Amino acid sequence: MSYENIPSGRPETLRVAVIGTGWIGAFHARSLADHIPGAQLYAVADPAEGRAAALAAEVGCPRATQRIEDVFEDEQVDAVVIGAPSAFHAQLISQAARAGKHIFCEKPTAHALSDLDAALAEIEDAKVVFQVGFNRRFSTDFAQAGQQVREGSVGQVQLLRSVTRDPAVVGGLSNPAGIRSHVIFTETLIHDFDALNWFNPGAKAIQVHAIADALVAPEHKETGLLDTAVVTVRYDNGAIAVAEANFSATYGYDVRGEIFGSGGMIQAGGPVQQTAGLFDAQGAHAETSRLNIDLFADAYRKQLEVFVRKVRGTQQGTADAALEVPGGSDARAALQIALAALESHESGLPVRLDAASRQAVAQ
Amino acid sequence: MSYENIPSGRPETLRVAVIGTGWIGAFHARSLADHIPGAQLYAVADPAEGRAAALAAEVGCPRATQRIEDVFEDEQVDAVVIGAPSAFHAQLISQAARAGKHIFCEKPTAHALSDLDAALAEIEDAKVVFQVGFNRRFSTDFAQAGQQVREGSVGQVQLLRSVTRDPAVVGGLSNPAGIRSHVIFTETLIHDFDALNWFNPGAKAIQVHAIADALVAPEHKETGLLDTAVVTVRYDNGAIAVAEANFSATYGYDVRGEIFGSGGMIQAGGPVQQTAGLFDAQGAHAETSRLNIDLFADAYRKQLEVFVRKVRGTQQGTADAALEVPGGSDARAALQIALAALESHESGLPVRLDAASRQAVAQ
Amino acid sequence: MSYENIPSGRPETLRVAVIGTGWIGAFHARSLADHIPGAQLYAVADPAEGRAAALAAEVGCPRATQRIEDVFEDEQVDAVVIGAPSAFHAQLISQAARAGKHIFCEKPTAHALSDLDAALAEIEDAKVVFQVGFNRRFSTDFAQAGQQVREGSVGQVQLLRSVTRDPAVVGGLSNPAGIRSHVIFTETLIHDFDALNWFNPGAKAIQVHAIADALVAPEHKETGLLDTAVVTVRYDNGAIAVAEANFSATYGYDVRGEIFGSGGMIQAGGPVQQTAGLFDAQGAHAETSRLNIDLFADAYRKQLEVFVRKVRGTQQGTADAALEVPGGSDARAALQIALAALESHESGLPVRLDAASRQAVAQ
Amino acid sequence: MSYENIPSGRPETLRVAVIGTGWIGAFHARSLADHIPGAQLYAVADPAEGRAAALAAEVGCPRATQRIEDVFEDEQVDAVVIGAPSAFHAQLISQAARAGKHIFCEKPTAHALSDLDAALAEIEDAKVVFQVGFNRRFSTDFAQAGQQVREGSVGQVQLLRSVTRDPAVVGGLSNPAGIRSHVIFTETLIHDFDALNWFNPGAKAIQVHAIADALVAPEHKETGLLDTAVVTVRYDNGAIAVAEANFSATYGYDVRGEIFGSGGMIQAGGPVQQTAGLFDAQGAHAETSRLNIDLFADAYRKQLEVFVRKVRGTQQGTADAALEVPGGSDARAALQIALAALESHESGLPVRLDAASRQAVAQ
Repeated sequence: MSYENIPSGRPETLRVAVIGTGWIGAFHARSLADHIPGAQLYAVADPAEGRAAALAAEVGCPRATQRIEDVFEDEQVDAVVIGAPSAFHAQLISQAARAGKHIFCEKPTAHALSDLDAALAEIEDAKVVFQVGFNRRFSTDFAQAGQQVREGSVGQVQLLRSVTRDPAVVGGLSNPAGIRSHVIFTETLIHDFDALNWFNPGAKAIQVHAIADALVAPEHKETGLLDTAVVTVRYDNGAIAVAEANFSATYGYDVRGEIFGSGGMIQAGGPVQQTAGLFDAQGAHAETSRLNIDLFADAYRKQLEVFVRKVRGTQQGTADAALEVPGGSDARAALQIALAALESHESGLPVRLDAASRQAVAQ
Repeated sequence: MSYENIPSGRPETLRVAVIGTGWIGAFHARSLADHIPGAQLYAVADPAEGRAAALAAEVGCPRATQRIEDVFEDEQVDAVVIGAPSAFHAQLISQAARAGKHIFCEKPTAHALSDLDAALAEIEDAKVVFQVGFNRRFSTDFAQAGQQVREGSVGQVQLLRSVTRDPAVVGGLSNPAGIRSHVIFTETLIHDFDALNWFNPGAKAIQVHAIADALVAPEHKETGLLDTAVVTVRYDNGAIAVAEANFSATYGYDVRGEIFGSGGMIQAGGPVQQTAGLFDAQGAHAETSRLNIDLFADAYRKQLEVFVRKVRGTQQGTADAALEVPGGSDARAALQIALAALESHESGLPVRLDAASRQAVAQ
Repeated sequence: MSYENIPSGRPETLRVAVIGTGWIGAFHARSLADHIPGAQLYAVADPAEGRAAALAAEVGCPRATQRIEDVFEDEQVDAVVIGAPSAFHAQLISQAARAGKHIFCEKPTAHALSDLDAALAEIEDAKVVFQVGFNRRFSTDFAQAGQQVREGSVGQVQLLRSVTRDPAVVGGLSNPAGIRSHVIFTETLIHDFDALNWFNPGAKAIQVHAIADALVAPEHKETGLLDTAVVTVRYDNGAIAVAEANFSATYGYDVRGEIFGSGGMIQAGGPVQQTAGLFDAQGAHAETSRLNIDLFADAYRKQLEVFVRKVRGTQQGTADAALEVPGGSDARAALQIALAALESHESGLPVRLDAASRQAVAQ
Repeated sequence: MSYENIPSGRPETLRVAVIGTGWIGAFHARSLADHIPGAQLYAVADPAEGRAAALAAEVGCPRATQRIEDVFEDEQVDAVVIGAPSAFHAQLISQAARAGKHIFCEKPTAHALSDLDAALAEIEDAKVVFQVGFNRRFSTDFAQAGQQVREGSVGQVQLLRSVTRDPAVVGGLSNPAGIRSHVIFTETLIHDFDALNWFNPGAKAIQVHAIADALVAPEHKETGLLDTAVVTVRYDNGAIAVAEANFSATYGYDVRGEIFGSGGMIQAGGPVQQTAGLFDAQGAHAETSRLNIDLFADAYRKQLEVFVRKVRGTQQGTADAALEVPGGSDARAALQIALAALESHESGLPVRLDAASRQAVAQ
């Protein structure tokens, strides 16, 4: 054999630790193990006994820990992916930032604006990369839509719509009664609020009105379950937006965005993706996507790819440092709408987002 | 830090060598380097000076060689991916099989049936896994179509269609005059012939009629260029199939399949994939896929994933050993149609595929 | 010649008078003259000098008059089609009913609920057929959607959407400043309110919230122009509906309906109807419908066909007398939402539709 | 009452006689009775006892006759619509032309080129309007496609496809054994041959190759039944076309056209037309059109509308006289391909269409 030894032309891989081993943490760990160029799944952390080790074994990661602080204290760790329950997000962001780790955090980044503001202040000080998991921006068609609206394809934005219909949030949970009222706004519709903000570049939400109910599982209404919601958002450029969510779409995962303006309309998403068409005695048929990690498998990975590129670009001083990703102000803008929607649902009235008050519009 | 050391629960990665560094060899090398779970890009080989080393450096592969035999002689190599020019395929398959390497080979596997038969005999003897690069079978919608036809969704197959319209084969080549007559049949339509065979399970092609011409670049017709072709194929179950190719689709890569039978119809493919819809004063618009490695990026990788799983399943005696992949008989069946199509083009007459003669049907 | 004389097996044609010669009156007159089996355009009436005569001459109608009462007093007239300005509708309905004429009236049927109630009382007394011009119910796909929801295809209705984007209401008018605030609710969205009611069988609207603005022609905002609106409607079965309108869709007439429920989703409408698909170097393209009388040409005629059949069925005591058409209660339900939407726009608050008060929900 | 009497501004209606009361003759009679502006269904003729009278009574036509010559001898008849069995078409055309009647004739216009040529000579002498029932040219999307190809949207035409899948020709007939071999070519595919000719303006078919079989009802193969066919047509501008037919599409009437050229592609037709979309636990669904008179209802009527306008334009010397309709040369070009396809099916060889010989290409 006469092999030539090739010194790698590639930069060293980024060492990433995943915090949290729920379904989204595990999904990100699997992605980092197999599908994200330039990244290495360096460690997995979860306080629950045995969970981090089990996931690490499954995906071939050599380190696991129940003590989250390990990954913050480990100088070998370049970046963390936070997939823990959302109640812990703001604190974990702060800890990671103080440790100088670059941060990818799942949504929502906090349950209160003050918590998020504190975390963002740490990020500001630490000058680390911060990206929030608004994966729709990385889905092929949503990404095209975002680019087209910025290129002026629809002119002045006047109407927007974002829809999330989830096939199984209620049906698939053993305890729907445990889903608190804020979940549909802070966990689900927060994706839609970000999409609406992103589709209306430069505009700020100024008023929110929400109608929500337990229509899928009315027997759990008493416990605070909300499984269906329609939220209207007014922007300071006049645009009127509607976000809509439901927790039990029998036909699969249905996520759509629509932007209408003085020059035209853009549509993205929908339940039918790349699929064979079947025509028979009952008519025409196509399969629909059933899981968000099917519908958005590429988008979930693409956002991590971009995160890794941006971090390495930042470390190495290349142009990738300037890659646009959803960051702190995006996380805050979406959370603000989610919290206002919850408030509007409770009062039955439109809520204004003035920095000063955030009081209900009518007394 | 209190990390637990996790012994990998994953089997050792498969060491794969890529032979050939043209665009398809390079694409496969990049896939193996970054995207194929369980595989390691172990070496790159190409006789042209500097090419293997350059690709290896780019993708982070530690070994490169100009001497192809190196990868056959190296006991560390589990499998080879053959992406060399097609004239060398049959010989490389034979060498690899004799060396006991599992083989993934790009299409066409040979330029003559006798060469292919010789190579397949070596594979038979060596009992290695052999997979041919008919990637359409791994594209989401084509895979669904293949499954649906096997489940009986269209009943008895009666009519089939497969289309390949390539945006740039002629326009993008510096020397269209160098494209010999067989190329449209053996390099392009061979994908369609395999798709037709695969969409008509259990049936054998019995007659082929081809019409072909240089319509895109008529100025090169004299040199033998064929850039447009329609081939009809008759099967022994009565089904009538049409394969169609053209080398200059302005609107992008357009690959489609259609199966019609006593119970219905299935359609797969098309130039519009996941994309935003734009509506403006000129009407409704959608982007089209422009490159086969865009249109089929997932399929190109998926076929390697399945190859790696099948090889490891074979090595370890797991169920993955039985994964269905396009193999020797599939390669032979498609090549036979391609060669008959060339013969039909030359004679102007239908050609029968009887094993005995393969003469033109009329004298 | 040896012709056999055939006594007509068909009933006598229905004699119909058209009142009003604006674009919709003229369209109905042309339909009756040429396209509606069993009907005869008997007379045209319009108080403006020369207009009735001009239209009558154009469409081959033998009678014209400036005195509307003529058609009420004429015993030969079986039915009237009211296409006059909407401010006169309620009074014309009353007159026609008192004269015993069957009535097809364009929307909106009145500008106030009390006026409509008075007219409906006359209809009740006269026992004449009354149909309002909610033509969407007769468009092929909307009609299918209405039938499917009644067959239970989506289960319990939870979310609804209706969209009207009109390409030219503002751009095509010489005097946008003359469009008063109610127009977008009472003339345009009233179609959507009827569609939502019809798509949610048996349910009653209980609360309305409207956001509206002059975004297309902000320079006319001062005069009361509203050219963009989003209205949310809450129903007593829990369903939440959104109606949306805009007066300047560059890409053509875009009318859509969507019904989502416990069993699935139905969609109808959209700007791309039967059209050739064009694929070129800029991607994929399709033409969009530009005028409502293009998009809904068949629906506009179909509703008159059904009206004529229902009237003749009533006259002759056949089963056609029971044909379902949008009538008085449908007209009232849609008008009530439209008026509440205007009120909500003015107060900025949700409006409840309790029969007792119809006051703003919060004081 | 103070009606103004309005002298009709419209020209006198055209008096049309329908010959033949089979399903297509009856459909045309119903259209003329109710839906074609400017036309009057003046008489119905059919030699079978009672049939003309029955249809006339049903549609409100005052005259019926068993003696076809009546309508030729009647000076009041302006035009005839020939819907008799195709074996009589050529002779009826000749008779009508000699009588000076304008002629709309269903396809095929003859069973032999010599018969058609004799009929066309009479038309030439009589200078009457002659239109053949190639209704696809009048379907909205096919008409757009035809216009777009003439505007140069696809550049130089290189590939064409036309498909007819009929849901019930075999299944719906009591005696499939009675369907002679030519039917699939002369009655069904003749529509496709005309579409291909029309989509390739200025080009002439030069060679035809057909593959046909009884795949739907193989038990009737012995009697000559052909229920499935694929025909390739070579044109003198190099374009290669495929026409495809089948007599038992379970999913409904499926008629499509596709034109590909140096500048792009155009598609028209398909089994899914204006329809609601239904999404449920089994995926996405749409209804398909089941009958040609559903799928092409508008096109069937539109062609008669244009015929009537052209005849009246000819009578009155207006611009409508120049309306483009499929005429004698179009009928002849399509018939020539159909007859060559039958010949190719019988010989198994490509057939050249040289005027001189029309012999099989190989001896």
